Amino acid sequence: MSEETGPTIYGDIRSGNCYKLKLLLELLGRPYRWEALDVLSGVTQSPNFLALNPNGKIPLLQLDDGRVLAESNAILHFLAEGSDFLPTDRWDHAQVLQWLFFEQYSHEPYIAVARFIRSFLGLPEARRAEYESRQAGGHKALAVMDQHLAKQDWLVGDGCSIADIALYAYTHVAHEGGFELAGYPSVRAWLDRIAALPGYVPMR
Amino acid sequence: MSEETGPTIYGDIRSGNCYKLKLLLELLGRPYRWEALDVLSGVTQSPNFLALNPNGKIPLLQLDDGRVLAESNAILHFLAEGSDFLPTDRWDHAQVLQWLFFEQYSHEPYIAVARFIRSFLGLPEARRAEYESRQAGGHKALAVMDQHLAKQDWLVGDGCSIADIALYAYTHVAHEGGFELAGYPSVRAWLDRIAALPGYVPMR
Repeated sequence: MSEETGPTIYGDIRSGNCYKLKLLLELLGRPYRWEALDVLSGVTQSPNFLALNPNGKIPLLQLDDGRVLAESNAILHFLAEGSDFLPTDRWDHAQVLQWLFFEQYSHEPYIAVARFIRSFLGLPEARRAEYESRQAGGHKALAVMDQHLAKQDWLVGDGCSIADIALYAYTHVAHEGGFELAGYPSVRAWLDRIAALPGYVPMR
Repeated sequence: MSEETGPTIYGDIRSGNCYKLKLLLELLGRPYRWEALDVLSGVTQSPNFLALNPNGKIPLLQLDDGRVLAESNAILHFLAEGSDFLPTDRWDHAQVLQWLFFEQYSHEPYIAVARFIRSFLGLPEARRAEYESRQAGGHKALAVMDQHLAKQDWLVGDGCSIADIALYAYTHVAHEGGFELAGYPSVRAWLDRIAALPGYVPMR
């Protein structure tokens, strides 16, 4: 990977899965190239894109030599290696992975999907039942996070890690999916801590 | 963790997410204690279990000193460290994580959920629409795997890794979720390769 331009990220900044990579790279102060794709345009299902990622999803990381890596949290882990955002202690590292899988299985499918239906699609009647079905799971995930963050400032260890960055991505826009955060004071204080980090960039 | 008895796994062997841990530990020839829970009994939502894992899910790993780790693929990664089942090459390791996240986001929510509705619940009419809605995504995941496995024997590198073990867990019982594997010859050959590994144990 070139030291001058850095790797390329194919992403749509409105997607939390894409934004989390930009946020990490900005916090690290590392160069990268952002190849903006519109997730609503169908471009991720085009033959050209499917040749890069057969699963047809963004974000996608591409190195200068052409190699590609998919899955937002795998990319996040790869980019964070050797930095303060990825603990080297074995147990702390295991807990980071635990939260990354929690994010993709118990958080994103509820909060990101509800947000997509409401804020990207305008909550069409045909998808209202699906939208409603996402609410309980999203609140359960937020409650698990709030309970944990009542005991410590960061999800793992004593500093911000990629576990925090991954979960920040959709939590800080959860209201766009209909999730009020008023009942989660520890989550709200944690969101503020992340937004105050040097190098922080908003989702745009 | 004791060298004699090893860690404790709380699991239901009918769950692929639990079975994948048993399969790895048996392939490694390592001792462990299996604490059998019935996923249908509601025990994972009991106060005692929620005190161990606030997210109320199995499998759960517990070390001798009481520390716990959740999320099947985070546990798989932790247990595989230092073994041949987790590549140390940085790019190979990144690809292993890519497949682990693929499994939890693009495979398990379709194939495992369809299997649960059909084989555990007996495909009740009230959940038939949900069952049907899981079919397309499951076939998409199988197609992505088949395309990749047509080019190489193992998902990453030149040997079996936890990427293979994680995806084997629900793929080899995909028919119980209504997914016929006839159209995925490379997946079928790969299933056979895994079942032929020394130390392999079936899901029971």
